[in-house]
Amino acid sequence: MIPSPIIWTENSLSLLDQTKLPGELVYLDCKTPQDVAEAIKRLSVRGAPAIGVAAAYGVTLGMDNLDETIELLASTRPTAVNLFWALERMKRCINQHQGMSGDQLRQILIQEACLIHEDDREKCRKIGEFGASLIKDGDGILTHCNAGVLATGGIGTALGVIYTAVEQGKKLSVYADETRPLLQGARLTAWELQKAGVDVTLICDNMAGVVMREGKINLVVVGADRITGNGDVANKIGTYSVAVLAEKHNIPFFVAAPTSTIDMSLINGSMIPIEQRLREEISHGFGKQTAPDGVKVYNPAFDVTPHELIKGIITEAGIAEPPYEKSLLQMVKRNFLT
Amino acid sequence: MIPSPIIWTENSLSLLDQTKLPGELVYLDCKTPQDVAEAIKRLSVRGAPAIGVAAAYGVTLGMDNLDETIELLASTRPTAVNLFWALERMKRCINQHQGMSGDQLRQILIQEACLIHEDDREKCRKIGEFGASLIKDGDGILTHCNAGVLATGGIGTALGVIYTAVEQGKKLSVYADETRPLLQGARLTAWELQKAGVDVTLICDNMAGVVMREGKINLVVVGADRITGNGDVANKIGTYSVAVLAEKHNIPFFVAAPTSTIDMSLINGSMIPIEQRLREEISHGFGKQTAPDGVKVYNPAFDVTPHELIKGIITEAGIAEPPYEKSLLQMVKRNFLT
Repeated sequence: MIPSPIIWTENSLSLLDQTKLPGELVYLDCKTPQDVAEAIKRLSVRGAPAIGVAAAYGVTLGMDNLDETIELLASTRPTAVNLFWALERMKRCINQHQGMSGDQLRQILIQEACLIHEDDREKCRKIGEFGASLIKDGDGILTHCNAGVLATGGIGTALGVIYTAVEQGKKLSVYADETRPLLQGARLTAWELQKAGVDVTLICDNMAGVVMREGKINLVVVGADRITGNGDVANKIGTYSVAVLAEKHNIPFFVAAPTSTIDMSLINGSMIPIEQRLREEISHGFGKQTAPDGVKVYNPAFDVTPHELIKGIITEAGIAEPPYEKSLLQMVKRNFLT
Repeated sequence: MIPSPIIWTENSLSLLDQTKLPGELVYLDCKTPQDVAEAIKRLSVRGAPAIGVAAAYGVTLGMDNLDETIELLASTRPTAVNLFWALERMKRCINQHQGMSGDQLRQILIQEACLIHEDDREKCRKIGEFGASLIKDGDGILTHCNAGVLATGGIGTALGVIYTAVEQGKKLSVYADETRPLLQGARLTAWELQKAGVDVTLICDNMAGVVMREGKINLVVVGADRITGNGDVANKIGTYSVAVLAEKHNIPFFVAAPTSTIDMSLINGSMIPIEQRLREEISHGFGKQTAPDGVKVYNPAFDVTPHELIKGIITEAGIAEPPYEKSLLQMVKRNFLT
């Protein structure tokens, strides 16, 4: 069993501290919005859908000043749009219940956060089903970063597709990019796939090209942190390189994400704010200095894969195909109606 | 000043222990061929030309049984052909001086090893000059792994090109891939470029695509461990991915290597033996476990970049261009005649 990254019990939020995986299994007990904000910032909880769910619960921990609470949670990380989507949904709920007593409102907000969590579980399930239809028995699949149980409220997006295909009896070989600098592929994806009994091989990011060239990969599937109206996809740094390599080897490249990751307000990927992170993530990986003192470092946490490189975007409302301007709009509408 | 990786003094060989860089500057005192073989195996000395030079000196430390000594040194690493080239040259020297007393032969072999070392220094100088002609003032240059002072007997191959261009007064921005799993880019390239006052920015391997897309790179230059007759190039794992990314962004991709790296006995890159290294390099980087127990790992130390992706191969005899079958043969012949 893969432990859930987010557990709500009565009045407190337990977040699996993913910075400690795979070595230690520790939950952080979050009692205030500050605790939740801190956990998001330091990547104890990460993955676009999971960040959204955690933030929604976080709102219910700061009833004294809801505006401030939402502002604080919104300021944690800039790229994953699911965070803003979840907070927007909580805001709407607050507005719909104005004039209610604090205690009543709190119960309603907790219910709404649980619903967002539950929704995400269901979305993952559907994404898994749609995506699994793309996968054939015997396929080799490459993934980057972690878009699994640990990144969502359910079975994951990219890994949800893999889990569902395996459950359907398909035999797969998964290759997991370790995903520098923070090694979510090594620490989280390899860990959860192994726990689930899926055949997984860990590689360094710079080996993706050679495993493709050796014919080991039939399909690439990754998650997303934000998808713009034209189908450009922001995801963990290195995703763009994987997409270029997949194109070179005629390997279909798929993105799996709930419609809450789609940001129709942005026309294309150049408008997505990309988080820059600390130099120490590269120069002092794993608690040890591995680069000279004072060396310049470039450390964007995400990159943008242009829509031309993406064969399809797997959502809970179906698989969007190019032209994405049309198909993504349909997905969002379809989701809105159901 | 960048310390020389190989220092011969009287009767002993000092090898800079590059596994300890950038933290510690320690030389290993090698008194036997076993010491040298061990230093090559554990990558205390690395880089195709430097391995060749170190092995040549290593021969002179095992005069008791020269055949065994050469066999031992040849068994250390399979991919870099400069090792076999240098040992072949030492063998030829031994054969030419048969019947000589042990002491006399030893002096001659030491002279030959010094000559190989000196030759390599001169080759690096020439590679630097030929290569610098390709570089314009203001260029952004990406390199992978370390092909610098620390990898050769001189100023380096790929980095030799950069040092020479900088000496000519050209202002450059160098991007160094950190080069997982052993981080030669972070630990060695960033370190020696910084020491030399060259503007260098360290990135993770998976960021090469995005810095190219952002227009930061005008040219890629890397070293080589073995070049086959058709121009296919074995080099540090990840080089192939960089070459594909460079092609996608219309960035010229160059290889810099002495003609001793060219293996005319192999028709193409599929024939190059690729060293597979221990899983722990990936799962336990930097002395810390960063992947789950028992996870499968794929860890080839090198990959092969096909000649179609290579704009030119910079040697001490000039810049070879496609078709390489012809141009490399000319380089080797030209070098043989001078």
